[in-house]
Amino acid sequence: MHAVRVNGFPCKDPMAVNPEDFFNPAMLDQPRDTKNSKVGSNVTNINVINFPGLNTLGISLARIDYGPLGVNTPHIHPRATELLTVLEGTLYLGFVTSNPNRLFSRVVKKGDVFVFPKAMIHFQMNLAHDKPAAALSSLSSQNPGVISIANAVFGSNPPISDDVLATAFQVEKKLIDWLQSQFWENNHY
Amino acid sequence: MHAVRVNGFPCKDPMAVNPEDFFNPAMLDQPRDTKNSKVGSNVTNINVINFPGLNTLGISLARIDYGPLGVNTPHIHPRATELLTVLEGTLYLGFVTSNPNRLFSRVVKKGDVFVFPKAMIHFQMNLAHDKPAAALSSLSSQNPGVISIANAVFGSNPPISDDVLATAFQVEKKLIDWLQSQFWENNHY
Amino acid sequence: MHAVRVNGFPCKDPMAVNPEDFFNPAMLDQPRDTKNSKVGSNVTNINVINFPGLNTLGISLARIDYGPLGVNTPHIHPRATELLTVLEGTLYLGFVTSNPNRLFSRVVKKGDVFVFPKAMIHFQMNLAHDKPAAALSSLSSQNPGVISIANAVFGSNPPISDDVLATAFQVEKKLIDWLQSQFWENNHY
Amino acid sequence: MHAVRVNGFPCKDPMAVNPEDFFNPAMLDQPRDTKNSKVGSNVTNINVINFPGLNTLGISLARIDYGPLGVNTPHIHPRATELLTVLEGTLYLGFVTSNPNRLFSRVVKKGDVFVFPKAMIHFQMNLAHDKPAAALSSLSSQNPGVISIANAVFGSNPPISDDVLATAFQVEKKLIDWLQSQFWENNHY
Amino acid sequence: MHAVRVNGFPCKDPMAVNPEDFFNPAMLDQPRDTKNSKVGSNVTNINVINFPGLNTLGISLARIDYGPLGVNTPHIHPRATELLTVLEGTLYLGFVTSNPNRLFSRVVKKGDVFVFPKAMIHFQMNLAHDKPAAALSSLSSQNPGVISIANAVFGSNPPISDDVLATAFQVEKKLIDWLQSQFWENNHY
Amino acid sequence: MHAVRVNGFPCKDPMAVNPEDFFNPAMLDQPRDTKNSKVGSNVTNINVINFPGLNTLGISLARIDYGPLGVNTPHIHPRATELLTVLEGTLYLGFVTSNPNRLFSRVVKKGDVFVFPKAMIHFQMNLAHDKPAAALSSLSSQNPGVISIANAVFGSNPPISDDVLATAFQVEKKLIDWLQSQFWENNHY
Repeated sequence: MHAVRVNGFPCKDPMAVNPEDFFNPAMLDQPRDTKNSKVGSNVTNINVINFPGLNTLGISLARIDYGPLGVNTPHIHPRATELLTVLEGTLYLGFVTSNPNRLFSRVVKKGDVFVFPKAMIHFQMNLAHDKPAAALSSLSSQNPGVISIANAVFGSNPPISDDVLATAFQVEKKLIDWLQSQFWENNHY
Repeated sequence: MHAVRVNGFPCKDPMAVNPEDFFNPAMLDQPRDTKNSKVGSNVTNINVINFPGLNTLGISLARIDYGPLGVNTPHIHPRATELLTVLEGTLYLGFVTSNPNRLFSRVVKKGDVFVFPKAMIHFQMNLAHDKPAAALSSLSSQNPGVISIANAVFGSNPPISDDVLATAFQVEKKLIDWLQSQFWENNHY
Repeated sequence: MHAVRVNGFPCKDPMAVNPEDFFNPAMLDQPRDTKNSKVGSNVTNINVINFPGLNTLGISLARIDYGPLGVNTPHIHPRATELLTVLEGTLYLGFVTSNPNRLFSRVVKKGDVFVFPKAMIHFQMNLAHDKPAAALSSLSSQNPGVISIANAVFGSNPPISDDVLATAFQVEKKLIDWLQSQFWENNHY
Repeated sequence: MHAVRVNGFPCKDPMAVNPEDFFNPAMLDQPRDTKNSKVGSNVTNINVINFPGLNTLGISLARIDYGPLGVNTPHIHPRATELLTVLEGTLYLGFVTSNPNRLFSRVVKKGDVFVFPKAMIHFQMNLAHDKPAAALSSLSSQNPGVISIANAVFGSNPPISDDVLATAFQVEKKLIDWLQSQFWENNHY
Repeated sequence: MHAVRVNGFPCKDPMAVNPEDFFNPAMLDQPRDTKNSKVGSNVTNINVINFPGLNTLGISLARIDYGPLGVNTPHIHPRATELLTVLEGTLYLGFVTSNPNRLFSRVVKKGDVFVFPKAMIHFQMNLAHDKPAAALSSLSSQNPGVISIANAVFGSNPPISDDVLATAFQVEKKLIDWLQSQFWENNHY
Repeated sequence: MHAVRVNGFPCKDPMAVNPEDFFNPAMLDQPRDTKNSKVGSNVTNINVINFPGLNTLGISLARIDYGPLGVNTPHIHPRATELLTVLEGTLYLGFVTSNPNRLFSRVVKKGDVFVFPKAMIHFQMNLAHDKPAAALSSLSSQNPGVISIANAVFGSNPPISDDVLATAFQVEKKLIDWLQSQFWENNHY
């Protein structure tokens, strides 16, 4: 599982490549635990970072598990479109376009497909109070990246100046400071 | 579900776009019937042809159902890498590289992931005699295309000259003629 | 200024193209007013939307004016890297990377150059209390798009469910509701 | 002839690059022998593998010689469109599209040009019983790759399971086994 | 020969496409007359302008005929690398790199291959006083474009100001004016 | 300032990257001296060669200073479109298209924007006899390259054969020889 490929040929000695280089025992059928997540979700990424065989191939996967009312919070994949299929449960999901900021949202159920265009802010939420949900997402990059809005804005290391954020969110600096202390903890325990 | 998008904006009147344009009720959780297939498999494609919202987004999906010992026969996607996840059952799968023709094959089970690099000949087979299998594939193009080797070579319309095929497969023309009559029927009933 | 070009040739009758199609009287030397902005900044975009001659050429410009302590709030260009040059004044600026959320920030002065990689959250702030600042940015797309984080998250039309945002920002719903009412007003007066 | 170039500059010491790096004494005017070929053809490739100066430049060449009734058997270039010019003789040639499998074929003569779109199955055959033919092909990749259908399907190393192929070609396994033994020999003497 | 293709499918009614759409009776084996050329050469282009089937396929061809001592004068293809094969005769050819301006030149003979990287100034000259020469070039774009340096600089319509050119070439304006009158005639009879 | 980035991540140890990697103290506000230039102009490039942080980001900058009547002589950027903004003064500028050679020129003043499409021959000239001018250009490549026509044609190292150039420019060889001696000196002192 450690080959790096260019134009279909691995960079390691081609004769040493084997089927394992194209395989990942991802256990994508297995629900992941969401109890340790403050937001009630858990994302399992299968991309070039843990599956080098995807290099140059322009595609990756993620399984998303949601606890009851769990949220995959607003985030961006800077290098990929995401095509989501619901594996289990019912989700409220959507994305916001750039100029102007229109929200395209919908409730989707098991077996449905929804697409989040490249680099748009998007989210999902499990609508059930009493049972988990799950989705499988295809991403159009071997290294899609993820920028969780709340964490990136309030939990970066080092923090963004609270002058900038107070102006941006039109609130007092002490609210920003409180949010930053909260997300710093989130990102760094 | 009929928008065509460029740079994230649909070509139809932007104000007339709505969440349905990004949604497809694909029922990807539902097994498809494989009984009418001579090879025991059934592919459900969710791509730009039936989901116009994928236009310019570089990604699509397919669900593959396999009957007992069913085969998704050797084929090529001329415009896409395929990243397959096993939803149910156990599959024997593989692909053949170009120059030289090495086979990379493996048995994979529920939850495993395997990647078929762009435009390589690949196949899958359900190893169970007594139960179905299923897989979900992500493809790195909104319009991946598919060329089933046996059908394209022996069942094209009109047929390829049997002189060419007899030489290519190093067999007598009457075997080619028999294969062509068989696949013509396959492709055209 | 209304030509659409493919491979260097305008789509309108090629013989009717003239030098005006490649020209824009952008007045980029002129400071813009920042007084009507709640955040103290004003962005003048010169891209394919108001300069069709840029079509297919993969580049655009923006002039940014900052009032005293004015902020160009955290935002993303989903389709472009931004290369900023300071025209006047001193700015605090930075961007946050994806996984993990590291902040790369710096104080820059007149004549300096700073680059914000594609689709990363970034911002600038004028550090002076008593005078304006200005910057000129080059963007690596004819249609870079802009997603202002606070507006997209709290001011989208229609709004994102406050359940999602309360969980995402780890705050009570009434704070979300207050932020949404504030940004709704911002985006829609 | 050993330079690797990026953006027009060789990776070896730029001052050590010389005109030989951009030159290949390919003898493309010389007919190649086709007598040792079971299918009566011989392909001379000039691509990045034997002409490193082509790296990053997105183009390569092939000369194809055909003996009397010789065939360049059905194959695919996974990374290139092929633009063929007939140098000598008369050829029957064609390609098969993906979904549905339509054959586009034609007889072409000296001086004619025919294009095989990227990754489509295509072939050529010399129609003369008594004299050779030749063609020169341009390919839209420095490393186009080639997948000869019969060899890849029946002659891969290791072989594809005969269960898969018997189902794919709708024939008995013993015919598959016979074809595999024949192509194994072809590919491995 | 009038199909426009996207992703391998013609834009005209797919069922109306036929083999002629992929064929061009280019007569590339036939020498062209070079007697009417002031520089002793004649270029026959086979690209998307006269062969629409090449659309989206990223490749085209040119046959170049040279009279005795004929020159294909210094020029640039703004959108293509050129891979040249000598069909007949002996050529002196070369290209000049950007920063610094190094010339890579060589004498090449029948059957040899030489590559001119994308958008570099290049030329060829027939070294024989007494017989013609010919070459076949592959270009990595369906619409490579050509900018002949002398004609573009001295023969544009309308002309470039002689102030600019006198400074550029470090000569007196009357020499520029004489060159412009000469090339105006060349380009406009 | 020495990081090389792929997909947004520097190739040096990611934890060792710092804000300086994205910063360049280019002093783009400072006029450059044009007195030592024979053509009266001076170009300051900020691209991947002196600002490695731009790697993979597809954009770069140049400041151009013009003395009185100074000329930025006809040249080509083989890998970039150029979007020019006038910082100071009044310029006559233009570009010549490929087939046919049309000139698109115009007089532009401070604050105006003009675009030179990728790989077209273009130039600018300061129209004032008594004061300098300046422009800031954005280029759609981290490594745009520059080919100054007069220098590349008449001043390459080694020189292009005067037979080729005499034919190309339709002048006597002794004029070519004189131009070459002049530009050799220009390029090599």
